[in-house]
Amino acid sequence: MKAVRIHEYRTPPSLDEIPQPDLHGHHDVIVRIGGAGVCRTDLHVVDGWFENIMRPERPFTLGHENAGWVEAVGDAVTSVHVGDPVIVHPLATCGVCGACRQGEDMYCTASTFPGVTVDGGYAEYLCTSERSLVLLPPGVEPAQVAPHADAGITAYRAVRKVSEVLQPGQTAVVIGVGGLGHIGLQLLSEMTPARIVAVDKSQLGRDLASKVGAEAIFGTEDAIDGVAELTGGLGADVVIDFVAEHDTPDRALRMLRQGGTYSIVGYGADLHIPTVEMVLKEITVLGNLVGNYADLDGLMKLVVNGRVQLETRDYPLDAAAQALDDLENGRIQGRAVLTPA
Amino acid sequence: MKAVRIHEYRTPPSLDEIPQPDLHGHHDVIVRIGGAGVCRTDLHVVDGWFENIMRPERPFTLGHENAGWVEAVGDAVTSVHVGDPVIVHPLATCGVCGACRQGEDMYCTASTFPGVTVDGGYAEYLCTSERSLVLLPPGVEPAQVAPHADAGITAYRAVRKVSEVLQPGQTAVVIGVGGLGHIGLQLLSEMTPARIVAVDKSQLGRDLASKVGAEAIFGTEDAIDGVAELTGGLGADVVIDFVAEHDTPDRALRMLRQGGTYSIVGYGADLHIPTVEMVLKEITVLGNLVGNYADLDGLMKLVVNGRVQLETRDYPLDAAAQALDDLENGRIQGRAVLTPA
Amino acid sequence: MKAVRIHEYRTPPSLDEIPQPDLHGHHDVIVRIGGAGVCRTDLHVVDGWFENIMRPERPFTLGHENAGWVEAVGDAVTSVHVGDPVIVHPLATCGVCGACRQGEDMYCTASTFPGVTVDGGYAEYLCTSERSLVLLPPGVEPAQVAPHADAGITAYRAVRKVSEVLQPGQTAVVIGVGGLGHIGLQLLSEMTPARIVAVDKSQLGRDLASKVGAEAIFGTEDAIDGVAELTGGLGADVVIDFVAEHDTPDRALRMLRQGGTYSIVGYGADLHIPTVEMVLKEITVLGNLVGNYADLDGLMKLVVNGRVQLETRDYPLDAAAQALDDLENGRIQGRAVLTPA
Amino acid sequence: MKAVRIHEYRTPPSLDEIPQPDLHGHHDVIVRIGGAGVCRTDLHVVDGWFENIMRPERPFTLGHENAGWVEAVGDAVTSVHVGDPVIVHPLATCGVCGACRQGEDMYCTASTFPGVTVDGGYAEYLCTSERSLVLLPPGVEPAQVAPHADAGITAYRAVRKVSEVLQPGQTAVVIGVGGLGHIGLQLLSEMTPARIVAVDKSQLGRDLASKVGAEAIFGTEDAIDGVAELTGGLGADVVIDFVAEHDTPDRALRMLRQGGTYSIVGYGADLHIPTVEMVLKEITVLGNLVGNYADLDGLMKLVVNGRVQLETRDYPLDAAAQALDDLENGRIQGRAVLTPA
Repeated sequence: MKAVRIHEYRTPPSLDEIPQPDLHGHHDVIVRIGGAGVCRTDLHVVDGWFENIMRPERPFTLGHENAGWVEAVGDAVTSVHVGDPVIVHPLATCGVCGACRQGEDMYCTASTFPGVTVDGGYAEYLCTSERSLVLLPPGVEPAQVAPHADAGITAYRAVRKVSEVLQPGQTAVVIGVGGLGHIGLQLLSEMTPARIVAVDKSQLGRDLASKVGAEAIFGTEDAIDGVAELTGGLGADVVIDFVAEHDTPDRALRMLRQGGTYSIVGYGADLHIPTVEMVLKEITVLGNLVGNYADLDGLMKLVVNGRVQLETRDYPLDAAAQALDDLENGRIQGRAVLTPA
Repeated sequence: MKAVRIHEYRTPPSLDEIPQPDLHGHHDVIVRIGGAGVCRTDLHVVDGWFENIMRPERPFTLGHENAGWVEAVGDAVTSVHVGDPVIVHPLATCGVCGACRQGEDMYCTASTFPGVTVDGGYAEYLCTSERSLVLLPPGVEPAQVAPHADAGITAYRAVRKVSEVLQPGQTAVVIGVGGLGHIGLQLLSEMTPARIVAVDKSQLGRDLASKVGAEAIFGTEDAIDGVAELTGGLGADVVIDFVAEHDTPDRALRMLRQGGTYSIVGYGADLHIPTVEMVLKEITVLGNLVGNYADLDGLMKLVVNGRVQLETRDYPLDAAAQALDDLENGRIQGRAVLTPA
Repeated sequence: MKAVRIHEYRTPPSLDEIPQPDLHGHHDVIVRIGGAGVCRTDLHVVDGWFENIMRPERPFTLGHENAGWVEAVGDAVTSVHVGDPVIVHPLATCGVCGACRQGEDMYCTASTFPGVTVDGGYAEYLCTSERSLVLLPPGVEPAQVAPHADAGITAYRAVRKVSEVLQPGQTAVVIGVGGLGHIGLQLLSEMTPARIVAVDKSQLGRDLASKVGAEAIFGTEDAIDGVAELTGGLGADVVIDFVAEHDTPDRALRMLRQGGTYSIVGYGADLHIPTVEMVLKEITVLGNLVGNYADLDGLMKLVVNGRVQLETRDYPLDAAAQALDDLENGRIQGRAVLTPA
Repeated sequence: MKAVRIHEYRTPPSLDEIPQPDLHGHHDVIVRIGGAGVCRTDLHVVDGWFENIMRPERPFTLGHENAGWVEAVGDAVTSVHVGDPVIVHPLATCGVCGACRQGEDMYCTASTFPGVTVDGGYAEYLCTSERSLVLLPPGVEPAQVAPHADAGITAYRAVRKVSEVLQPGQTAVVIGVGGLGHIGLQLLSEMTPARIVAVDKSQLGRDLASKVGAEAIFGTEDAIDGVAELTGGLGADVVIDFVAEHDTPDRALRMLRQGGTYSIVGYGADLHIPTVEMVLKEITVLGNLVGNYADLDGLMKLVVNGRVQLETRDYPLDAAAQALDDLENGRIQGRAVLTPA
């Protein structure tokens, strides 16, 4: 089968012909890929950011935002059947560690991460675990929802956490209206009563913010003053930062009111803040990892009911390099999706 | 009356003879001081840290940890009477802003802060508001509990916030076992089922930790390895940092497990952390301001039932300079308290 | 001035000419009434339900859902000024008891309840406390929002409490789409991601449910089966009962899934359930009192932003008897409001 | 092997000789029983309470509070090994339904319940699932902790839920100081800052309450007045009812303050309360099912650290009928445990 693989870091991945994956474990499932989302993390994988953190064995196939159809199942699999349409949680988890038993899949102490540590879904077939699969209802095309497998649930987790503090009359700011941010804006609207503000440096992002219903939209330079004016000088109750590069954390903190919450989803820059400011403003800072299985399940319920729209652009699997290049250069509104022919 | 006052920053305060305060507002209360706690923040006030943040008019009297007896009351006061023993919440708040209406006294938009922005309690008498006063039951000496007015409720607020996440089998680390830290250790034990670890650079602090029941105690240099060993290499679920000076934030973060909470109470150093670490470890960082009125009320209920012990050393009001010097030079175990003759 | 007053229970109230109220306390405020909502509780007051619970001194003026303009203020009042348009929280509270200090106004140990225990707002003027008043922004007519003072905040409090458990994909049922219920439906939509179902015995109520956006609507007889079918046989996650008369509690419990929450706002019937069912289904049952001041403030923010619409029918103050009769006989869609000429 | 089995309801179970259980599923585990707790639910099973609710096929072996050593494991089992000492969660769950994925094992849609619906642990060996097992550390005897498998985690779950509302200065009442109640009292002390009150009709229960540290102890007749006096007439913030038979629910509700929580663990009587009382007192009523796997894991961490003591009396397996009779007639302090020879 065709697969887009990393051989050397900091070098474009190559389109290889490799054998289809086999079943090994009792709970293994082979998924025929319908679509694989193209994520900023893929650019970081190519650049070798995770080389020393997760030490994957090269070559391996990219792709951690996958959806498709069940092709084959291991002998202990009970919850899915051949032919079922599914979306794939990014981690394949053990199911018996303490984290798994509490539903915190991302903290599993014995997981694999297809597309980052083992073969992923920029391919025709993917091997994952039964535990990673959420069934799709009839009428939902896997390629249409694939980006929710990572972009969606990461935005969902961040919004779910701040939804515990957002009250009517409060203000939530989303920084960065790309693949994750445009989902985050819609989820804030569905899951909280807050007034929702979007910030993006590009016209493409601001247009997308407008399309998904942000109540106020600012460019990077106008955002601090704009938020101050909207909130009577107090600042926002919550800022979710889907960028967190360059000076974004500093700007985000300057938008925040006393008692406010700064929620970090993007990464790249450092967070740097005097402890006296943390104390006097009594700020909360939240890091956000990818959502867990229940987050994916909850999100799909909103998607199926038409409450969250995904802005996607399809590319054939062969054009993975082009999709990655378009993402890197800010030419994609929403999310690119690779589809095997 | 006698009062210890700031005339110039970065200069020892002077012991002045000034008039007793008068009643002005409908809800004003004059408190005859029984004891005033000596706080690290007082050192910062002397050093002018708040000169540009809160812009107090000099000269003014130090002292924001006060307890005593009601001496006189304004014409709208209903909740206390002349002669009542009271402990004094550090802020005098308006009672009608949104923050006050939700019980978040520290966010009051029209408060005064005796001892920091107006005359405080290093004196024989203090003018505050009815809204600042918690009645003490018979048998409780004001001087014995005065430090709870700030040290106590700040520790209480920090512990109350982390008590929402601490579960049985989890580990909480307290860094800094001084005035606040030794209260924090006891409150963790009363309010959470967690295993409790103390870290202090001095033998004085480690002895106090032992006295108040910490289950494991480390010096600064041994703490990171010690916590790792205690937790099977995972790290602590919560670290409360009552110091936050020099490299303490870095050390605190290195003690923390994935999904852990770093709670900051002390101040001085900067917090500096890559956003990628915030995300991959999914860390929560909490700033903590002084507790609100309900926190003071809750704490006093524990104090009255003998569940929280305060380690204090009394100084006469005339010896304020000595008390401040002893605090600055690490010669006080627990908290110093000034008592007017 | 004119006032509609209770002289004898179980007898229609009479329209009397009485003196305007005077200022007595430091925080008293006289409000010129713009509108007073007509509530099912008023029918219960007329019927003497509260005769032995709250022991009001007769005669007294009905009306606990009031809005208007500030006419005069006591000497300690700082937060409102003569001429300000305001909506009036139903309780006049003390501000210094433990409940008030935590923002739980309804638990105030020294409150009065105008319209139920002292003179209310079925009149030209009302005496209340500064602490009861939320300022209305320019352009909001008091008569348009008066029912939010009780109907609105009671629905708000009930929805706010269940919003802590409602997740995407879950189902919330509202029983009774009258004055409170039609606000509750809109608040569920604004504050939670749940699927929202309405149940009402009358076509008037079901039409109103449709108008405010319920996703499924049933009559009383079809509701249990309808909810079962919608939820794959599991039942609803939350049922909010704005009726709680006759056999409504039994029906509500039969709509509920394992782990579900039954939230009671209306009253009249008894709740009767075997403890073995409470345990095996692990049900939560919540009683809901009127919302507090922060609830009123939060609700008004949603109202001002156009997120909650109120269905009202105006009656002149002289027609109070007619309004009460129309309410009792199910002839009002939404809420009746009395307006002094 | 020997097993104590139900052949006919409302007839004493018989001691049978039956074959040892075999492995069937991939995740099956055979446990050699070290001890099996004797629970009030066993009396209800004998009496046929669950005959029509869960429809078990007779004959079947009693016993749902089990601990022992792993004897044999299925081919997909990874988390335990032959010889490991374990305590057994009462349900054998599927691991892939929505409830299991969120850690709510008791809501599993495809579970078995050994001792209630299939063969349980009043026997020499038990067949369960890998997912039911919590490893015991060296030095912990299975028979010493077996009752925690159900009595313990049910008390734990109830206390964990109320721990979210109990603040310093508040009062929690435990009704019924038997197998569950004496664990509940200790857990309240470990997990909350509340003042803890015990109520039991028997001297045996009141002595046990005293032994485990209740701060006030009442007989049934004195409890309502006693709680009122302790709380200045307000009532308790939380009442946990481990009995819920006869008029206990009525008495429990009369001990409760406005805004209080009535938590039901025992069962037998009906809950009967006017909705107007639910509303005016704004009561919360909680049903409590058995705890989930994480609850068992959390509880065992407290047990291992010596924070929770279990009062047990051992009986040989042959004496099961005697143990059940002693329980029914109030002759057991704490919990009876059956141990195979």
